[in-house]
Amino acid sequence: MSNKVRNESRTVEDLGEFGFIKSIASGCINRLDGVVYGIGDDCAVIGPFGDRVLLVTTDLLIENVHFILDRIPPEHIGEKSIAVNLSDIAAMGGLPRHTFVSIAVPRLFPARVLNGIYGGIKSACKAYGVNLLGGDTSSSPGGLFINVTAIGETNKDSVMYRRGARVGDRIYVCGTLGGSVAGLKILKGEIPAAPEQWPSLVLMHTRPRALIKEGLTIGSCGMATAMIDISDGLVADLGHVCEESKVGAEVQEDSLPISEDLLSLGKQYHVDVTEYALTGGEDYALLVTVPPESAREFEKLLEQKTGAKPTDIGEITAGSDVKCMTPAGRQRHLETRGFNHFTS
Amino acid sequence: MSNKVRNESRTVEDLGEFGFIKSIASGCINRLDGVVYGIGDDCAVIGPFGDRVLLVTTDLLIENVHFILDRIPPEHIGEKSIAVNLSDIAAMGGLPRHTFVSIAVPRLFPARVLNGIYGGIKSACKAYGVNLLGGDTSSSPGGLFINVTAIGETNKDSVMYRRGARVGDRIYVCGTLGGSVAGLKILKGEIPAAPEQWPSLVLMHTRPRALIKEGLTIGSCGMATAMIDISDGLVADLGHVCEESKVGAEVQEDSLPISEDLLSLGKQYHVDVTEYALTGGEDYALLVTVPPESAREFEKLLEQKTGAKPTDIGEITAGSDVKCMTPAGRQRHLETRGFNHFTS
Repeated sequence: MSNKVRNESRTVEDLGEFGFIKSIASGCINRLDGVVYGIGDDCAVIGPFGDRVLLVTTDLLIENVHFILDRIPPEHIGEKSIAVNLSDIAAMGGLPRHTFVSIAVPRLFPARVLNGIYGGIKSACKAYGVNLLGGDTSSSPGGLFINVTAIGETNKDSVMYRRGARVGDRIYVCGTLGGSVAGLKILKGEIPAAPEQWPSLVLMHTRPRALIKEGLTIGSCGMATAMIDISDGLVADLGHVCEESKVGAEVQEDSLPISEDLLSLGKQYHVDVTEYALTGGEDYALLVTVPPESAREFEKLLEQKTGAKPTDIGEITAGSDVKCMTPAGRQRHLETRGFNHFTS
Repeated sequence: MSNKVRNESRTVEDLGEFGFIKSIASGCINRLDGVVYGIGDDCAVIGPFGDRVLLVTTDLLIENVHFILDRIPPEHIGEKSIAVNLSDIAAMGGLPRHTFVSIAVPRLFPARVLNGIYGGIKSACKAYGVNLLGGDTSSSPGGLFINVTAIGETNKDSVMYRRGARVGDRIYVCGTLGGSVAGLKILKGEIPAAPEQWPSLVLMHTRPRALIKEGLTIGSCGMATAMIDISDGLVADLGHVCEESKVGAEVQEDSLPISEDLLSLGKQYHVDVTEYALTGGEDYALLVTVPPESAREFEKLLEQKTGAKPTDIGEITAGSDVKCMTPAGRQRHLETRGFNHFTS
């Protein structure tokens, strides 16, 4: 970039990621037919095609922003780039079908590493039963960039949005929380623990799993009112649901689904794993709201279809705040802003 | 990247872009239903949904690889990122409907420039009647990266592939050739001409137009046998058609559609504009093959529907070579490799 271009006062950092997204979200629809939902949820929804709709999502993964090349095997980078996109489709209640991968690599990038990344992309596609149907390749003047677009499908009446939560709904989490950020901190040496002694936490970060079966079950059961995947952290993503649904939420921190390994790590290294569970990103768990009268049946169905009970972590409330209550009944002070890629 | 990762002998540059694409193109289909065509053409084709199919394409634009920020207005970068993707949809005979834009920007990038780019993206979407339905944003540790995914649609019997050309077919070009590379060379100072004196050539580079109406007419007319958009250069893209169709081609260089302005530039600065027309990339003209018995009718139809006659530049031949003949009937020496983003 030239000095002429750089020499300006207001930067994208000042703007902030969410501020920027809001500023561009108007005037994006020029032809309404064929659009069910545009910008503002985990996926766009296009169609309908008969009784089906397509879900489309796209995600960037950038070296030294989203991953550090020598701390994570190339295969895992490839797998993760697919899984995080499929998680967005799961969060809308869809079945992922196709992926498209654009990749920019430095000219002297080792072929072995690039092949490893594509090996991971292909093995993830195979594991999830999705196709790799295209993409683009380019040289990069600075670091590795991966952009994945994923397309899924579902019945037009089974799409789950962020906007449907209602006061009194129970808040459920499928999956566990806080493991990914713990794994990242171990890999970065911010917690002085040997990565090989905490494989489950490291893998939560390097090989997240998209909860497809859970998302499909939730979408088709007709009981849930809202869903989102937890990529920015529980508080931030629950905040997105509350904002879109115009409600608040109260979370009981002693109910959070935290793995035994993460609890052990917390004790051993004196770290506040509840904070990890509340604000750590990249868990790719699913957050779901369900009216109280359906709660029992919902738990039973999920356990029956997926083998795991969802965790009831709290309740949707009137207002607009996301409150987190300690076991003593006090409100925990929370940093409620979402993860901001322009400043983090 | 760490030294550990860098310290390897074989790089992506050794592999080459097309070699790499070939190496990954197998094992990409894990579930065949819902896929009409995967990797290997301008778009993937998914569906059918009733009698319709969707066309999906994705393209990367990278600062200092695909554009230089202070030589092209931000609005034009935005417009171009949309147009080049829509051109891929035009090349398959489709109507573009939706776009998704991922963008990675340095933290201290001027908000004004980013807003300009999105202004261009939105005005292009408006001009083409397509929607902007989503995307991703991130900080970038090095330069500006834009990835656009575009989705189009067409009747399932109107899709145009690269693979259908037959011996004896006439080769047509809609649009002109060589202007974009001339504009680029003017902007970069490689031709000592003032950009403001050659606006049509500079605009060919900075504001290419996707030939949607032409593509739709060609797709639906039932006369054409193959189509591609000319993004890598005429010889390279005709080569792709020949390879996929298992044929050769003979182009008459005095038939090439070269604009008056480009001819003037050639005379004034003693540059070989025929070479530009043959190998210069990013013209986003459409190359079409048509059986000789339909040629007249095809020309007439295109002129009637789009206001411009396509240019007959040569003939599909047996064999596999793309030959270019001088007015004296001699074969011109050609560099037949396509544009390689890993080495260029």
